[in-house]
Amino acid sequence: MKLDDIDRKILEMLIEDGRMSYVDIGKKLNLSRVAVRERVNQLVKHGVIEKFTVVINSEKFGKQVSAFFEVDCEPAYLVEVAQKLAENPNVASCYQMTGPSTLHMHVLVEDFAALEKFINNELYALEGITRVESHILLRRFKSRTGLKL
Amino acid sequence: MKLDDIDRKILEMLIEDGRMSYVDIGKKLNLSRVAVRERVNQLVKHGVIEKFTVVINSEKFGKQVSAFFEVDCEPAYLVEVAQKLAENPNVASCYQMTGPSTLHMHVLVEDFAALEKFINNELYALEGITRVESHILLRRFKSRTGLKL
Amino acid sequence: MKLDDIDRKILEMLIEDGRMSYVDIGKKLNLSRVAVRERVNQLVKHGVIEKFTVVINSEKFGKQVSAFFEVDCEPAYLVEVAQKLAENPNVASCYQMTGPSTLHMHVLVEDFAALEKFINNELYALEGITRVESHILLRRFKSRTGLKL
Amino acid sequence: MKLDDIDRKILEMLIEDGRMSYVDIGKKLNLSRVAVRERVNQLVKHGVIEKFTVVINSEKFGKQVSAFFEVDCEPAYLVEVAQKLAENPNVASCYQMTGPSTLHMHVLVEDFAALEKFINNELYALEGITRVESHILLRRFKSRTGLKL
Amino acid sequence: MKLDDIDRKILEMLIEDGRMSYVDIGKKLNLSRVAVRERVNQLVKHGVIEKFTVVINSEKFGKQVSAFFEVDCEPAYLVEVAQKLAENPNVASCYQMTGPSTLHMHVLVEDFAALEKFINNELYALEGITRVESHILLRRFKSRTGLKL
Amino acid sequence: MKLDDIDRKILEMLIEDGRMSYVDIGKKLNLSRVAVRERVNQLVKHGVIEKFTVVINSEKFGKQVSAFFEVDCEPAYLVEVAQKLAENPNVASCYQMTGPSTLHMHVLVEDFAALEKFINNELYALEGITRVESHILLRRFKSRTGLKL
Amino acid sequence: MKLDDIDRKILEMLIEDGRMSYVDIGKKLNLSRVAVRERVNQLVKHGVIEKFTVVINSEKFGKQVSAFFEVDCEPAYLVEVAQKLAENPNVASCYQMTGPSTLHMHVLVEDFAALEKFINNELYALEGITRVESHILLRRFKSRTGLKL
Amino acid sequence: MKLDDIDRKILEMLIEDGRMSYVDIGKKLNLSRVAVRERVNQLVKHGVIEKFTVVINSEKFGKQVSAFFEVDCEPAYLVEVAQKLAENPNVASCYQMTGPSTLHMHVLVEDFAALEKFINNELYALEGITRVESHILLRRFKSRTGLKL
Repeated sequence: MKLDDIDRKILEMLIEDGRMSYVDIGKKLNLSRVAVRERVNQLVKHGVIEKFTVVINSEKFGKQVSAFFEVDCEPAYLVEVAQKLAENPNVASCYQMTGPSTLHMHVLVEDFAALEKFINNELYALEGITRVESHILLRRFKSRTGLKL
Repeated sequence: MKLDDIDRKILEMLIEDGRMSYVDIGKKLNLSRVAVRERVNQLVKHGVIEKFTVVINSEKFGKQVSAFFEVDCEPAYLVEVAQKLAENPNVASCYQMTGPSTLHMHVLVEDFAALEKFINNELYALEGITRVESHILLRRFKSRTGLKL
Repeated sequence: MKLDDIDRKILEMLIEDGRMSYVDIGKKLNLSRVAVRERVNQLVKHGVIEKFTVVINSEKFGKQVSAFFEVDCEPAYLVEVAQKLAENPNVASCYQMTGPSTLHMHVLVEDFAALEKFINNELYALEGITRVESHILLRRFKSRTGLKL
Repeated sequence: MKLDDIDRKILEMLIEDGRMSYVDIGKKLNLSRVAVRERVNQLVKHGVIEKFTVVINSEKFGKQVSAFFEVDCEPAYLVEVAQKLAENPNVASCYQMTGPSTLHMHVLVEDFAALEKFINNELYALEGITRVESHILLRRFKSRTGLKL
Repeated sequence: MKLDDIDRKILEMLIEDGRMSYVDIGKKLNLSRVAVRERVNQLVKHGVIEKFTVVINSEKFGKQVSAFFEVDCEPAYLVEVAQKLAENPNVASCYQMTGPSTLHMHVLVEDFAALEKFINNELYALEGITRVESHILLRRFKSRTGLKL
Repeated sequence: MKLDDIDRKILEMLIEDGRMSYVDIGKKLNLSRVAVRERVNQLVKHGVIEKFTVVINSEKFGKQVSAFFEVDCEPAYLVEVAQKLAENPNVASCYQMTGPSTLHMHVLVEDFAALEKFINNELYALEGITRVESHILLRRFKSRTGLKL
Repeated sequence: MKLDDIDRKILEMLIEDGRMSYVDIGKKLNLSRVAVRERVNQLVKHGVIEKFTVVINSEKFGKQVSAFFEVDCEPAYLVEVAQKLAENPNVASCYQMTGPSTLHMHVLVEDFAALEKFINNELYALEGITRVESHILLRRFKSRTGLKL
Repeated sequence: MKLDDIDRKILEMLIEDGRMSYVDIGKKLNLSRVAVRERVNQLVKHGVIEKFTVVINSEKFGKQVSAFFEVDCEPAYLVEVAQKLAENPNVASCYQMTGPSTLHMHVLVEDFAALEKFINNELYALEGITRVESHILLRRFKSRTGLKL
């Protein structure tokens, strides 16, 4: 699917307000409600829009600590470890990247006690992990929504 | 605002489908449409829900390369550099964390040529940057939506 | 227990001189000996004051070498190694921190021969240790007492 | 001053309870109150005992976050930076060690917001600092009092 | 230009022997000399074949030492440094890569004295270079020709 | 074999155009075709010229991604791992160098999906590999042909 | 044995010329030959002088390559590995130091081929070695004799 | 000068005892005193033997602390810094090597106070030094004399 300018404008509006009505979107673009709906349906059908969702404030949801991890694995265990970590509800994202043979992982937990438990009981217990590096978020300068990271 | 079980269930449903109607949410929870609307309004008002939005597939949107950066700054320049990077449209997120005095940054660009241009023309041109480390995403094992990272 | 200004002033005086009499503390704060005693008892009872103790000069006590260690463990062994090290009389403190999956440890020994013996016979003999980094104290710029590190 | 066994036993008792009376110490060692007082006075006079003090629980005192820092300086600035950091009330200890040309520093602050402020406003503002590494205490396995670290 | 199987076979033969005659290539592929020539011309015209060349044994040519360098630059100087290094006759290749903000460089020199001179007089003299790491080739396990690295 | 100036000039011409005729080379050097042929034969016979070949544009050949790897091995496995990697068709070069006990490897693959497969299925599957570091080529500043790296 | 100024002057002369006669030393110090001999004997007897020896030019002796190694061992194997390396005739010195748990080793070999053989056949074959880092001497700025390193 | 077996045997004897008489050497090799003297003179004249000297026990000479340093310099200052360090009487050896752009240095000092002074007053005061890493010798496994390192 090739995106045109109107598609991109619709996407930008939906990134800013995922519940904006097709009527309101149409008004801004001189399009009918039906035309907007058709375009949005195409964007969903072709997988450009993967999901309508909400952004929740982690601290207000009770997750005080936002931590990044670099997880070194024995190479032969990397995919298996990644798949187990992906099932852990404390793990928000888990990526393999170029650079060192580590997994890059983002974890959200209630507090420091929960972080220590996650590390010692859940992370260090996985076979194939050789070294872990963890850092705590101090300050957000930008946290854009829309495009999947 | 203290969240109860019903709030949490509403949030989970909205994470999965941000356009779910209050009627449908209400049916699942034995609540009226009005009661659901009132709770959602409270969640928005207290900042628990920061935004209704969409998740867009970066590759299908034309951003083929997803890159992580560690940006080392002279300490005195760190906040200034972070604020400039936050204004750059290629930068999706920018965090300060414990660990080394670097900025952690996520960048989405069209292709490798755009990445090279971003690095050499936009990043390396900022005063106060002493060293940059970049890695390219190879594989996503988990990329959860909902809670803000 | 909520601390007020008088509690804090009492604590500061006891940090500077742990044997200061309640009469002398009371004079400085316009309080009776009994009132001071009652407050100190409360501070002890609630665990604000963990211990009355002395600070001993390590060199004059015969511990010439003060060394910091970073101890890398196989993740599955970290807690067990930490508990064994905590029982070692040469180990003054042992912490787990964010950052790399190491234990941070402070060791006081008589001299270099004792340090070499501690490293080769006691530390390297523990199962699960993969790498050790040691550094020797050269100069103290500050070594505050009072708050537990 | 050469310490004998009785001196060492007195020191051990005072480490465990810095307010123990000379009478009680004397009973355990078959010594008179006067003999104990004389020995303690000698230990203080010769600087073996540097201070009578208390150990305060940092969390209960309102210092939730205990952080270690490695501060890299331009070599010519190291002593000056160390002396400025030693004056900062958030800094509990500051050492120069063998190994890399960094300062090893222990910081106690109220919470994460205070930590971020300390880093960005107080630490990064010092001339001569080139890189900082910070780690947060997760778990204490041992924190011995008595001998000065 | 889309390559077909015959193009690929011709390229493989020319990688192994860049002076192979069109007649001999044609025999192996059941093609006329003219047809082979036409295909080779197209491969050159479209830039698939960049160059006919020879592989020279470096040691026998008098270059005893083959060294890899990682050159750290102040980011603002990276492109300029790279361009100057590219003009240096001792430099065989010079790349910018993801990872740390270094240049990756391959150098061939007569002997160790020439290497030391190259480093101290030519490399360290360039403005903007902050750190250099060099390694000497010990053993070649594979050194494939054909595709440009 | 000792090279003289004429040998070196012939080599330079062949590096620039490996199919240059002996007649043309001879004209530039005031030599007969036979004399040039004899010298080239000697250069081949003594192994100074290892091969006549072509340089192929990797991208146009369908290899979009050019990656460098540092492969850490358990020392006892290094030679074995190197020999297996040398047989892998994606591996363009593989060297052992001074510095860390890693193999330095250059890999050319079709695209990122192929890179991820190469890493997870072929590289990480080799026994004795403990850690891998990969970087992607961003920009070529120099890529000289002729002397074997 | 307490050294006085005359002892130190004798040592300095012997460092510069280990075969200097007692008569010549005595002349410079206004001492008899017998008095010098007696002092030298005392210095040898008390182990201040460990050995009379020669300094040989390594390159002229046929050892073209002078290399430093950092050898990482599994901690439990460190002493055993060190003792085996100490027996290897290519190893000139082998030390354990503070810092990382590596052995610091100096190796002298004939040429690069000998170095590669030493590394792959002798060093990597030892059980308990996990990683090796090697560097080649480029230039000596000072190489003092006399005091044992 | 080409060394033969007899030269090598003479060198080995002189390494073990630099004051061994030509008569004694001659007896072991079936050579006359004059023949030995002639060979030794040739070895000195051709620079194979650089010096007759003694090995002094550093601790007994009053140098309690033996320390290794890695000194990072701004590349443009490396040679100048090396030359200044070579003049410092505490510096026993100073080398430039492949690997990182550091100077490798061996220092012998009286005690820790002298080490701290050397670092802060002499080393850190040199212009062009950016970072220093120091390690203390814990145990000698081998310290061979004879060949110059």
